[in-house]
Amino acid sequence: MSKSNINIGFIGTGVMGSAMASHILDGGYKLSVYNRTKIKASALINKGAIWKDSVAELSKDSDIVITIVGYPKDVEEVYLGENGIINNIKKGSYVVDMTTSKPSLAKKIYNAAKEKEIFALDAPVSGGDVGAAEGTLSIMIGGDREAFENLKPIFQLMGKNIVLQGSAGAGQHTKMCNQIAIASNIMGVCEALVYAKKSGLDSETVLKSIGTGGAASWQLNAYAPRILKSDYAPGFYIKHFVKDMKIALEEAAAMGLDTPALSLSKKLYDKLIEQGKEDLGTQALYELYLD
Amino acid sequence: MSKSNINIGFIGTGVMGSAMASHILDGGYKLSVYNRTKIKASALINKGAIWKDSVAELSKDSDIVITIVGYPKDVEEVYLGENGIINNIKKGSYVVDMTTSKPSLAKKIYNAAKEKEIFALDAPVSGGDVGAAEGTLSIMIGGDREAFENLKPIFQLMGKNIVLQGSAGAGQHTKMCNQIAIASNIMGVCEALVYAKKSGLDSETVLKSIGTGGAASWQLNAYAPRILKSDYAPGFYIKHFVKDMKIALEEAAAMGLDTPALSLSKKLYDKLIEQGKEDLGTQALYELYLD
Repeated sequence: MSKSNINIGFIGTGVMGSAMASHILDGGYKLSVYNRTKIKASALINKGAIWKDSVAELSKDSDIVITIVGYPKDVEEVYLGENGIINNIKKGSYVVDMTTSKPSLAKKIYNAAKEKEIFALDAPVSGGDVGAAEGTLSIMIGGDREAFENLKPIFQLMGKNIVLQGSAGAGQHTKMCNQIAIASNIMGVCEALVYAKKSGLDSETVLKSIGTGGAASWQLNAYAPRILKSDYAPGFYIKHFVKDMKIALEEAAAMGLDTPALSLSKKLYDKLIEQGKEDLGTQALYELYLD
Repeated sequence: MSKSNINIGFIGTGVMGSAMASHILDGGYKLSVYNRTKIKASALINKGAIWKDSVAELSKDSDIVITIVGYPKDVEEVYLGENGIINNIKKGSYVVDMTTSKPSLAKKIYNAAKEKEIFALDAPVSGGDVGAAEGTLSIMIGGDREAFENLKPIFQLMGKNIVLQGSAGAGQHTKMCNQIAIASNIMGVCEALVYAKKSGLDSETVLKSIGTGGAASWQLNAYAPRILKSDYAPGFYIKHFVKDMKIALEEAAAMGLDTPALSLSKKLYDKLIEQGKEDLGTQALYELYLD
């Protein structure tokens, strides 16, 4: 089957989704789109994507549906709701949730899909808006190997580091590992920078010493320069990070696992949310230390 | 003055010091050494270094004295004790403490040295045993610019990233920033890996996804592979890391700065010390999460 005969439906055309869907169009596939707020899909529509008025309508006409929406409750509704994907997509189709969401929900979707002979993958991503724009995302996938292999050419349009992590839910669990590491790293970045400031050092010069070697990290190198310019524009929204940490903490608790640094990070970010800063970038944690 | 006429005295020939002193010998300088345990200096002596029986004797004959010893109390004794460096070294000489030690002590040594017309620098390092062996350390320096410039050729034998951070104590403060960032990072690495294990993921495969991108860090890339092999041999001793965190916490408290992630990390490592694990590497923090 030629690419132009494969109908891909894409649900969720926010900053990440729009960039990812755009790469699929560039790849030569036929693309339909749906989003709660239509205006956010207009760039894709102008580029040749077909607008669909509902999840159900989009699902009926698609061989593959890809979703990247907000929160687990949105994922649940889009997939398992009365007018959701699973109730409307045809047998033999593929569904791929790229939202960062609950591993348990990914398994539930996989099972509901399987009952109807639909192939489901969970495939959350890392790499942020820049990675989405450049098609260099890290994509962490859970589900059956055959489905993974069949969709690989499509993943390769969106990302560079594409890894099947295991059965359904394994993509989401891997994304939790990623977020758990970040949750601690960003605290270290902020504490190091606020110490530098309070001890009278020149923070830019400090970065020259600590930006390589044992303290080096993606978080330090990406965010410290922004923090020093008081640039708190979101590369990654605080509200989304808190959602991810909440999932990770619930999953860890269910495994009987204590993660005190993750708990602390969640607690600090909760304070930022109380201060109305949920739409700032995660680097705004620094401000909490200045209070 | 030719290099072979400059007498450099080196105190503290542990793993780090021996490698660093060896580069100075290779650089063509005349090197004297002293260490509490003479046997640890034997490789250097075999290579041409001259053994001195005491700090005082070494200091009397040196134009430059470099130290890298264990704890702040050792630094204080070696510099400011009755038979220490400052009481014995000649006017116009240079002293460089490369131990990770207290910023306040660095200032005290600088002032005591200045009174006797001796030039003092604090110059702690980052990069571990590998960086010392390869001469690629990051060296963070506090003190007067002129002294820094005069000793730069010697620093360049030991390190690659050599930065004057400010006046006396600034090298130590910068090292504290480095350790503060690490204190959080290593918790994130361990929590991510233990989550991977408990959730049934293949940890090696998880590293393929999270080892690049937002969760990437020197700590993750250096220590996760060792943790997965249960290799807890010290690249950096827990006992030394706890010493560093203790200094950082004391300094932060003195500035009225709250660093909850650093406090948490210190608390977790204190538990490892209670378990008798002070001579393991810092990556052994992972074991605490398995308890």
